[in-house]
Amino acid sequence: MSLLVVGSIAYDSVETPFGKVDDVLGGAAAHFASAASFFAKVKMVGVVGDDYDLANLDFLKAREVDLEGVTRAKGKTFRWKGRYGYNLNEAETLDTQLGVFADFKPELPSEYRKAPYVFLANIHPELQLYVLKQAQNTKLVALDTMNFWIEGERPALKKTLSAVDMVIINEGEVRQLSGEYNLVKAARAVLSYGPSRLIVKRGEYGALMFTEDHIFASPAYPLEAVFDPTGAGDSFAGGVMGHLARTGDLSNNNLRQAIIVGSVMASFHVEDYSMDRNKTLLEAEVHERFRAFRALTEFEDLVVPPE
Amino acid sequence: MSLLVVGSIAYDSVETPFGKVDDVLGGAAAHFASAASFFAKVKMVGVVGDDYDLANLDFLKAREVDLEGVTRAKGKTFRWKGRYGYNLNEAETLDTQLGVFADFKPELPSEYRKAPYVFLANIHPELQLYVLKQAQNTKLVALDTMNFWIEGERPALKKTLSAVDMVIINEGEVRQLSGEYNLVKAARAVLSYGPSRLIVKRGEYGALMFTEDHIFASPAYPLEAVFDPTGAGDSFAGGVMGHLARTGDLSNNNLRQAIIVGSVMASFHVEDYSMDRNKTLLEAEVHERFRAFRALTEFEDLVVPPE
Repeated sequence: MSLLVVGSIAYDSVETPFGKVDDVLGGAAAHFASAASFFAKVKMVGVVGDDYDLANLDFLKAREVDLEGVTRAKGKTFRWKGRYGYNLNEAETLDTQLGVFADFKPELPSEYRKAPYVFLANIHPELQLYVLKQAQNTKLVALDTMNFWIEGERPALKKTLSAVDMVIINEGEVRQLSGEYNLVKAARAVLSYGPSRLIVKRGEYGALMFTEDHIFASPAYPLEAVFDPTGAGDSFAGGVMGHLARTGDLSNNNLRQAIIVGSVMASFHVEDYSMDRNKTLLEAEVHERFRAFRALTEFEDLVVPPE
Repeated sequence: MSLLVVGSIAYDSVETPFGKVDDVLGGAAAHFASAASFFAKVKMVGVVGDDYDLANLDFLKAREVDLEGVTRAKGKTFRWKGRYGYNLNEAETLDTQLGVFADFKPELPSEYRKAPYVFLANIHPELQLYVLKQAQNTKLVALDTMNFWIEGERPALKKTLSAVDMVIINEGEVRQLSGEYNLVKAARAVLSYGPSRLIVKRGEYGALMFTEDHIFASPAYPLEAVFDPTGAGDSFAGGVMGHLARTGDLSNNNLRQAIIVGSVMASFHVEDYSMDRNKTLLEAEVHERFRAFRALTEFEDLVVPPE
C-alpha cells in the first residue's frame, strides 16, 4: 500500500571526527523516502528552491518514489550545517537557513490523498494537521516532532497528537513532551494525548515501542564504523513505515518486525554520509542484517532446576 | 558449583529524588552475594570494622552464603555517601570513608581456594591478582574495576586483566580502559588484554556481551519505579555469575541466559533501597521476570516477499 511522507528536503553540510561533506542530499522526507522505498510505493511532499539540482532525487525516482508532490519555489533550498564529536548521538547545529522551507505549505496532489500510510516528518504541528485534513483514507498516521515545537507550539502539537495513531520521537523529546523523566511514565503520558503507539528512538541504544499494554525493546546494531548519523532517525522511521505499508498488518507482532526493519535501515544509513549507503544497498543485505538482529538478541528459555 | 566473591562491605547513605536512607547495607561484595545466592553457594571475602552490626549479614547466611572469609578489623567500616538526580544512571559521590577497607588484604580460607567460579569486585588490581594466586581450581574468573584504577593503576590492572577470563564493567570504563570511543573497537581492545569475554553494563540501556566472534545485546527492564540504583551493577554481576556457577556451562547460549538473569536481578534490585528488594524476592518472581524479558525482546523472522 502506498506511503505518503511530508517533510523537509535539504542540503546538508556535516562535520564528524572522520571527515566533512558539503551540500549533500538531506532533509527528513528525503532520508525517510530513501529507506521506505525499499519496501513500499512512497509519495513524497516537500519543497526545494531554484538552486536545487533535481538530479539529486533521481535515485528515488528509480525506486518508484512519486515526486509529483515535490515543488520548486523561488528562493534558496533549506540548508543545515552541523557537527558531531566522537559521541555521535548529539549533533551541534552550526547553521540553519530555512530558505523556501519557511513558507512551506504542503498541498497533496489528488493521487496522494488516498494514501493509507502517512508519515508526518518534523514540521510545524499546524502544517502536519493541515496535511491530515487533506488525507482521506488513512490507516496509520505517524508523526515526528522536535524540541522547538514541543517548547514553542505545545497547544498546536497536542491538537495534532490527538489526531495521529503513532509517534516516533527520541528519548529526550518524550521526556520534554511529557514532563516526566521516567520513560515508562513518560510514554504513558504521551499515549494519553491520543496516539495508540509510541516508538522511542534512543540512538546507539536502540528503540522502545510502547502501546497501552505492551513494550518492545530493540537494540541498535553494534557498528564499528559510524560515519554520519544525520538522518538515521528518519531512515529508521522509513524502515518502520515502509514495512507496515508493505505488509498492511498493524498487529503487535508485525510492529515488532517493523521496528527491527527500521533498526536495520538506520544501521546501514550511518555507515556513510548523507543517504549514500542506501543508494547501493541490496534487499538481500537488509534480510541478512535482519537475521543478524535475531542473532544479536536471541536467548533460550530458563529451565527451572529441580529442587 | 561454588562461587567466590571478594570485595567491599559497606555502610551506604543514599539520597535520590524519592527519598533518603542512612547507613544501610552496601558494598560490592554484599550486593553481589545477595543476588548470586539465589543460584549458587557463595563464599564471601571482605572486611568490616568493629562498628559493624554483623546481624546485617544474617539474611545472606540464611541463603547459605559462607561468611568465614568476612573478617572484622579494628576501626571503622567502609562508608559511602552518594546522591542521584532524576538521571539515575549517574551517582554523585558526597563522601567516601575507606576505614578498615584501606588496609584490606584478602586472605582466602582454605575451603575457599577450590571455588571454580570467582568474582573479583572492584578493589585494587594488585589485590585482585593476590586473590587469584590463592585460588587453585578456577573455571571462570570475572573482574570488575573502576575509573580510579584505570587512571592510576593501569600497569597493575593490565597485568590482572591478562589473568582473568571475563570483565564486567560499564560503558564509560570500557571507553576509558581502551582509549576508544566506538564500543565495538573498544571491546576488541579490552579482549586483546587477555579476557575472552567482556560484558558491558549500560545502566537503563541494558548490557552487551562481546567475545572474539560474538555479540549479544540485552535491554534493561523498563521500570516505572526506580528507587535506588546503588549496587545494581553488582547485583547484575551476581545474577550472571550465579547462573554460570549453578549451571557450570560456559557456552555462548548459556552466557546469554546468564546476562538475562543478571538483568532480571538488577531490575529487582533498583526497586527498593540497598538490597531490600532481594531480601523478599522469590525464585518464582525471578522466573516470571525472565519470561518478561523474552516477551520484551522477541520478534518473528522476516519473510522474503514474492517478487
